[in-house]
Amino acid sequence: MEKLRIGVVGIGNMGSYHALCLNNGEIPNAELTAVCDTSPQRLKWASENLGAGVQRFDRAEMLFQSGLVDGVIIAVPHYDHPTLSIEAFKHHLHVLCEKPAGVYTKQVRRMNEAAAESGRVFGIMYNQRTNPLYLKLRELVKAGELGEIKRTNWIITNWYRPQAYYNSGGWRATWAGEGGGVMLNQCPHNLDLWQWTCGMPIRVRAFCGCGKYHDIEVEDDVTAYVEYKNGATGVFITSTGDAPGTNRFEITGDMGKIVIEDGKLNFWRNRLSEREFNKTTTIPFSQPEVWKCEVPLSGTETAHKGIIANWAEGILKGTPLLAPGEEGINGLQISNAIYLSSWLNDMVEIPVPENLYYEKLKEKIEASSYKKTVSEVKVSDVNGTFNSK
Amino acid sequence: MEKLRIGVVGIGNMGSYHALCLNNGEIPNAELTAVCDTSPQRLKWASENLGAGVQRFDRAEMLFQSGLVDGVIIAVPHYDHPTLSIEAFKHHLHVLCEKPAGVYTKQVRRMNEAAAESGRVFGIMYNQRTNPLYLKLRELVKAGELGEIKRTNWIITNWYRPQAYYNSGGWRATWAGEGGGVMLNQCPHNLDLWQWTCGMPIRVRAFCGCGKYHDIEVEDDVTAYVEYKNGATGVFITSTGDAPGTNRFEITGDMGKIVIEDGKLNFWRNRLSEREFNKTTTIPFSQPEVWKCEVPLSGTETAHKGIIANWAEGILKGTPLLAPGEEGINGLQISNAIYLSSWLNDMVEIPVPENLYYEKLKEKIEASSYKKTVSEVKVSDVNGTFNSK
Repeated sequence: MEKLRIGVVGIGNMGSYHALCLNNGEIPNAELTAVCDTSPQRLKWASENLGAGVQRFDRAEMLFQSGLVDGVIIAVPHYDHPTLSIEAFKHHLHVLCEKPAGVYTKQVRRMNEAAAESGRVFGIMYNQRTNPLYLKLRELVKAGELGEIKRTNWIITNWYRPQAYYNSGGWRATWAGEGGGVMLNQCPHNLDLWQWTCGMPIRVRAFCGCGKYHDIEVEDDVTAYVEYKNGATGVFITSTGDAPGTNRFEITGDMGKIVIEDGKLNFWRNRLSEREFNKTTTIPFSQPEVWKCEVPLSGTETAHKGIIANWAEGILKGTPLLAPGEEGINGLQISNAIYLSSWLNDMVEIPVPENLYYEKLKEKIEASSYKKTVSEVKVSDVNGTFNSK
Repeated sequence: MEKLRIGVVGIGNMGSYHALCLNNGEIPNAELTAVCDTSPQRLKWASENLGAGVQRFDRAEMLFQSGLVDGVIIAVPHYDHPTLSIEAFKHHLHVLCEKPAGVYTKQVRRMNEAAAESGRVFGIMYNQRTNPLYLKLRELVKAGELGEIKRTNWIITNWYRPQAYYNSGGWRATWAGEGGGVMLNQCPHNLDLWQWTCGMPIRVRAFCGCGKYHDIEVEDDVTAYVEYKNGATGVFITSTGDAPGTNRFEITGDMGKIVIEDGKLNFWRNRLSEREFNKTTTIPFSQPEVWKCEVPLSGTETAHKGIIANWAEGILKGTPLLAPGEEGINGLQISNAIYLSSWLNDMVEIPVPENLYYEKLKEKIEASSYKKTVSEVKVSDVNGTFNSK
C-alpha cells in the first residue's frame, strides 16, 4: 500500500498525539517522516519517543523544504494555523490543519484562497464529524426527514476546566495568545457540527462572560441566540465553569424533533407534518400523532485517526474529504459573530464584517493588561478530553 | 366543617371547570353559591349543570353585592382580572384570581394595593405550585443544596396549539383581547415557577416571533435571555408551534445540576463545591467528583383544587397561602420585560418601566388591523391541557 509521508508541525498536546498515532502505524495509509517544534524540550521528547527515521526540525520552513513530506499536519497555536498552512501550500504540500481554522475570518479567508491556488488537498481536524450521531443527524436533515427546521438548541456546557488548566500554558485564554476562550479552544467542533448538520445562521446576538469563573481575560461563559434564513431560531450555550455540564442537542422541525444526548439519538416523528396539521385540524386542543422512533446508527467514531486517514486517501486516491479545510471558516464565522455581538452589545450579521472584527480584536489585544501566573508549562495527556460524547 | 361560600365570576373554559369542582363537592372546605357570566348561553349552561341553589348573575357587581358569597374566583379574560379583583376587594370579599394576574404591571400593582387595603385574603391560581417537582426544586434551592445558582434553562415548548384553537374565541391572541400570546396565556405558570424556584432576573433580552406559526397578531414563539443579580444567566424558550414540544428545566449551581424532565427530578451533586475545586485542584483536565442522586418527591399534585382549598383555609384558619396573589406580578414583570425587549430591540431592566410598557401596549392595540376568522365560540374541555408534566 502506498503511504503518504507526513510531517507534524507543532508537537505539543495535540501534535504529539498525532505524531504518536502515525509513528505507531495506526494510520495504514500514512507514515510519520518529520516533526517540527520550536521547543528544545519537545524535540528531545521526539528523539526519545518517535522512530529514529523521523527527522526533527526547529523551523517549519525547513521541514517544508526538506522533501521528506507530501503533506503536513499543522498543530500549533491558533493564530499560526493560517500562516503556516499558507506557507505549506506555497511549498506545494497538502495540509491538514488543527481546529480552529484560525482566529479571525480575514486570516482564514486568505488561507482558503491559498489552498485553492495551490490545488493541494486541504483538510481540517474536525474529528467529531466521524461521530455516527452527527453523521446520522446530518443525513436525516439532508434527506428531509425532519422537514423544515424550526429550532436548534445546543446546551454544550460539559467543557469544564479548572484554573489549573488555564495556568498550564501562557498562551492559553489570552487575546494575544489564543484570540479567545471557550469559543475558540473548546467549541470549534460543536460550532462546526451545528452548522454542518443544521446550516449557517444569518445573524447572532450573544452574551459572553469574560473571566466569569476563572482568572482569565477571555470568555468562559456564552449564551448565543441565532436566526436562520428560513426564520428558524437557535440557541447555543457553553461554558468551562459548569460542573457537571450538559451535552444536549435538540433540533425541531416540521416533522418532529431529534434530541442527541447521552450518546443517543432519539427521533420523535410526526405522522403528519405539523404545518399541514395546523391548517387542517378543527380540534382546538390537539396535536399531530407522534411516534418515538428508534433510529439505528452505523459505524464507529474513528476520530482523529479517521480524519487523517480520510485526508491521506483524498491525496492518494481523490476520495472526497469528510472535513474539507475550506469549511473551517464556517464555525469561525459563528464564533467571530458571537464575540462581535457581545463587544458591540448588538445583533451581528453573518458573514461577519471581517475588517471590523480584526480591528476590534487588535483593540482587545492592545488593551490587555493581563498577566498570567503560569505554572510549569507541560504537555498534558489529552486522551479523554475530546468530549465527543 | 365550616365552608367558605364561593362565587365564580366568568364561567367559560376555566371558570366552569372550577364551578363544577365546587358544585360536585370536591373541595371539602368550600361550596359554590353563585356564578356570573355576561353570556346568556353560559348562564343557561349553569342552570342545567349546577345545583338549583347556585344563584346566577349577569353582572359581577350584583354578585359582589348579593351577600351570598365570602370570596370570589375571578376567571374572566386577562384584562379584567385586576378590574374585577379590585371591585371585589371594595366589597370586602376575598379573591382568588386566575392567572395571569393581569396584562400589564401598572394595572396589577394597583390590584395588589387594593388587596393590601382590603385586608382580605388574596390568592392566585398558580396550580402548578402544588406540583411536587417544583416544590422539591424550590426546597432544594432554598436549602442551599445547589449552592449559588449559575444558570437556569427552561425549554418549555410543549404548549402546542393549532390554528383551530386561535379561531375558537375572538379575544384570543389579540393585543386588544388578550394583551399577548404564549407568554400571557400559556406560560404564566412557567414564568411563575421559574422565579419562584430560582429568583427574579434583573434584566431581559428577548426575541419574539409574532404570528410565526399561526394567523394571529401576537407572539407564538419566544427566546428570552436573562441575567440575575448574582451574575447567573438564564434562557427561557417557548412556542405554540412546536410539535412535539419539550419541557426540560435545568438549573446549574456551584454544587451541581438539577434537571426536571419527563416528570422526574434528577440531581447531579458535586462532592466538593465547584468554586472550591476550581481554586484547589492542580490537575488541568479534572472536575469535581459528582454523584447522581435519587431525590424523593413527596405528595401529589393537587392542582386547582389544592389552590382553592388552600385559599379557603387561608380565609377560614389563617393558613399561609401557597400562591399569594401579590406574587402574580413577578411572572408578569418577566413577560412584560420580554415583550418590551422585543419591541425596543434592546435589553430591558426589571422592574419594567410600567408607564412605558403601558404606552407601548396601547400603541399595539391601536395599530392593530387584525381581523380574525372566528369559528363558533364554544367552551372547550380543558382537562388535559394544563401541561403540568
